[in-house]
Amino acid sequence: MFNFSYQNPTRIVFGQGQIKELAKLVPANAKILLTYGGGSIKQNGVYQQVMQALEGFEVLEFSGIEPNPSFETLLKAVEMVKQQDITYLLPVGGGSVIDGTKFIAAAVAYAGDPWDILTRKAKLTQAMPLGCVLTLPATGTESNGNSVVTRYSTQEKLSFASPLVYPQFAILDPTVTYSLPPRQVANGVVDAFVHVMEQYMTYPVNAPVQDRFAEGLLLTLIEQGPLALSDPQNYDVRANVMWAATMALNGLIGQGVPQDWATHMIGHEITAVHGLDHAQTLAVVLPALLNEQRAQKREKLLQYGRRVWGLQHADEERLIDDAISYTRAFFEQMGVPTRLADYGIKAEAVDELVNKLEQHQLLKLGEHGDITLAVSRKILQAAV
Amino acid sequence: MFNFSYQNPTRIVFGQGQIKELAKLVPANAKILLTYGGGSIKQNGVYQQVMQALEGFEVLEFSGIEPNPSFETLLKAVEMVKQQDITYLLPVGGGSVIDGTKFIAAAVAYAGDPWDILTRKAKLTQAMPLGCVLTLPATGTESNGNSVVTRYSTQEKLSFASPLVYPQFAILDPTVTYSLPPRQVANGVVDAFVHVMEQYMTYPVNAPVQDRFAEGLLLTLIEQGPLALSDPQNYDVRANVMWAATMALNGLIGQGVPQDWATHMIGHEITAVHGLDHAQTLAVVLPALLNEQRAQKREKLLQYGRRVWGLQHADEERLIDDAISYTRAFFEQMGVPTRLADYGIKAEAVDELVNKLEQHQLLKLGEHGDITLAVSRKILQAAV
Repeated sequence: MFNFSYQNPTRIVFGQGQIKELAKLVPANAKILLTYGGGSIKQNGVYQQVMQALEGFEVLEFSGIEPNPSFETLLKAVEMVKQQDITYLLPVGGGSVIDGTKFIAAAVAYAGDPWDILTRKAKLTQAMPLGCVLTLPATGTESNGNSVVTRYSTQEKLSFASPLVYPQFAILDPTVTYSLPPRQVANGVVDAFVHVMEQYMTYPVNAPVQDRFAEGLLLTLIEQGPLALSDPQNYDVRANVMWAATMALNGLIGQGVPQDWATHMIGHEITAVHGLDHAQTLAVVLPALLNEQRAQKREKLLQYGRRVWGLQHADEERLIDDAISYTRAFFEQMGVPTRLADYGIKAEAVDELVNKLEQHQLLKLGEHGDITLAVSRKILQAAV
Repeated sequence: MFNFSYQNPTRIVFGQGQIKELAKLVPANAKILLTYGGGSIKQNGVYQQVMQALEGFEVLEFSGIEPNPSFETLLKAVEMVKQQDITYLLPVGGGSVIDGTKFIAAAVAYAGDPWDILTRKAKLTQAMPLGCVLTLPATGTESNGNSVVTRYSTQEKLSFASPLVYPQFAILDPTVTYSLPPRQVANGVVDAFVHVMEQYMTYPVNAPVQDRFAEGLLLTLIEQGPLALSDPQNYDVRANVMWAATMALNGLIGQGVPQDWATHMIGHEITAVHGLDHAQTLAVVLPALLNEQRAQKREKLLQYGRRVWGLQHADEERLIDDAISYTRAFFEQMGVPTRLADYGIKAEAVDELVNKLEQHQLLKLGEHGDITLAVSRKILQAAV
């Protein structure tokens, strides 16, 4: 096991009816900016629950944060926070709304050009406080310090991370996910699954607690994910998916072990250029990447095949083939296609994606740093 | 899954050499009270490492905190903290030193009779800050708000819990456990194992993440515990035991699920009256309790037998018998005897133990509150 230092300050307030706890979680006398996306929270009653819980607080609103939140849009919110003397940020939504609001929290408190935050030139020393109400289990952003923002004008999807932007609290009420479109449910399950894989599917370092926690999350997502689609009003299923997605990327399972993240880095470029949903890009890249890196990941691929998929072949190559095939089949079962061609993207598109990786200096990806541009190209070609 | 609210603010600083991080973790200008036990930290070099890391800080010392820390001893430390204007507490030791120091932290800041804290009459509103260096993986106290203290004059072993006494940080260096006596290593593994069982071995509430995390910890302890005895200088083994013990009782696996804790409550009385090590009492009580409660715990006993011990009998009663026998055999394998008679305690002792439970109003233990005094008596009789 590697050395690590881990702290996760976010309070998780989990379960049906917990939105009413908001008044106790937000600081007294806070002047709140409620941030959200396209307005689905008004249709499913979450907006009304939040406003009712915050009676007596001064609450302003900023809506229109996009899926893959836009740098340009978020700057408008930064302006609003400054002009209105907002003291607390309350994103209500999925990963994009919360990620975007973390960027707002950092940008308000940063004196320089906000773009520096995403190019990681900025040294952040403070950020506004935020707490969140999660409506879409997927990214884990409700309980970590990560944020991904897209600058549409230049087709750049970049990320930053800081302990300063951990939400102080995250309300997770599984019932608010009942009304999600199946595509978003599926994307969330695939996203969480790949988050676990990025921290698990590397090489063994004799860390059985981390391995078994990761395998427990994968098994849960494989079992509960399809049920969330087939039985969307099942509370337990929704609760299990929600809790698994939070645990998948609150940092815990990745402590003391190598991490990969190449699938995410390559996937970000596909979203930036072609507009695919984040999870769609992961479903496309991961199977191709696992096959390309099968030598480097051999021991963990065998462990994964045996423990997660229950495979018992004596032939190890066949076992690895099947572990990858089962992974692909799971994504397809969730309704998320796993080939670029399924999204109308052809082999000619690979060059531009590799160029984007080069432009962002993503030249040595993966746990060994051996996913060079040439290897990324092979992965993308195999993913067509 | 049940609703829950969970936050764990402790920073875990894990790995070889991490004691040197102390100077960054303790607040600048802190006047520190270093608390410890019988002085083993001076023999194994931990004391020296700590003092070297804290060069430049004002550090006072309070030693002599007993295994099963004594109320009377701790009150002396409370007096010292007040007289010396100590601003930060730094326990360096195992569960007893850290538990005892949490009590000091609470008692210093409590205006009434400190005994009220343990009888839970006190409403705590503040506590002194503390951070810790763990030398014995076992209780999980390094990352939770729990504390157990014994008043020897009246043979009472009582506990309190407060979010105010979470350590701000916990340094976990597996190498400091190399020199532990085998008995303490074994006790720690058994203690951690039973902590997991208290949160897992109840009844199913469709919480697969919690179940699989718990099973992952049990499997890790079963696999790594004996290796810690047979190969005491193996870093990975020590690291895995240490991390498993922390995860066993940092609150995470118990969120949203029923909990038992009857084994602990009955065990505490055995320690208070007969002076057995805490883990010894758990090893004695748990197998007897599982058998006595086999109807109530049936579904989880079957799941435990299958997933943790790999049992596949068609006969479910036999499967449960074997799951309990394997549990007992694991404790014995660790060198911790599982019968009261092994410690020279005979059937005549049961009455007094039941009287103690009655005196402490522990009349309805277990996840269903159905472990009455009569049931506790049967468990103790079966444990002779």
